[in-house]
Amino acid sequence: MFWQLIGVSAACLTSFAFFPQVIKMYRGKSSKDISLITLVQLSLGVGLWILYGAYLKDLIIVLANSITLLTLLIALFLYRKYTIKI
Amino acid sequence: MFWQLIGVSAACLTSFAFFPQVIKMYRGKSSKDISLITLVQLSLGVGLWILYGAYLKDLIIVLANSITLLTLLIALFLYRKYTIKI
Repeated sequence: MFWQLIGVSAACLTSFAFFPQVIKMYRGKSSKDISLITLVQLSLGVGLWILYGAYLKDLIIVLANSITLLTLLIALFLYRKYTIKI
Repeated sequence: MFWQLIGVSAACLTSFAFFPQVIKMYRGKSSKDISLITLVQLSLGVGLWILYGAYLKDLIIVLANSITLLTLLIALFLYRKYTIKI
């Protein structure tokens, strides 16, 4: 029970970790210091985790990573929106 | 074999995802647009994943999350260094 709580807390904390970043980007209308490579690399990685979770038929892996992927896609959209094109 | 490759790729991509962010913060000497809450929340979450992985005796979970935690701690250090104190 204790260890399940640790696992669930870990999953919740990491799944929703990009919410504050998305809010900060939206409010600050800036993404200058954000690494695009980090956003793209994480999105690809999390996408593969969803595939791997589907293969393992593990709903937790699929759900947790889907939430992360969704916020990462919003972050990528905001990055594009607030980055000055040269 | 194919699915193991998917899992390993997912783990590698997400484990090393904060390396480019750390490099960008170091080069840009700025962390204005980075969300401190995201960094702290991810560090806590990844820390709990390490505990959970140790409980499951799963070396992959422990190793992958240790790499992420290490880069997140460097990112937190740089965040503190480059944030103007009021």
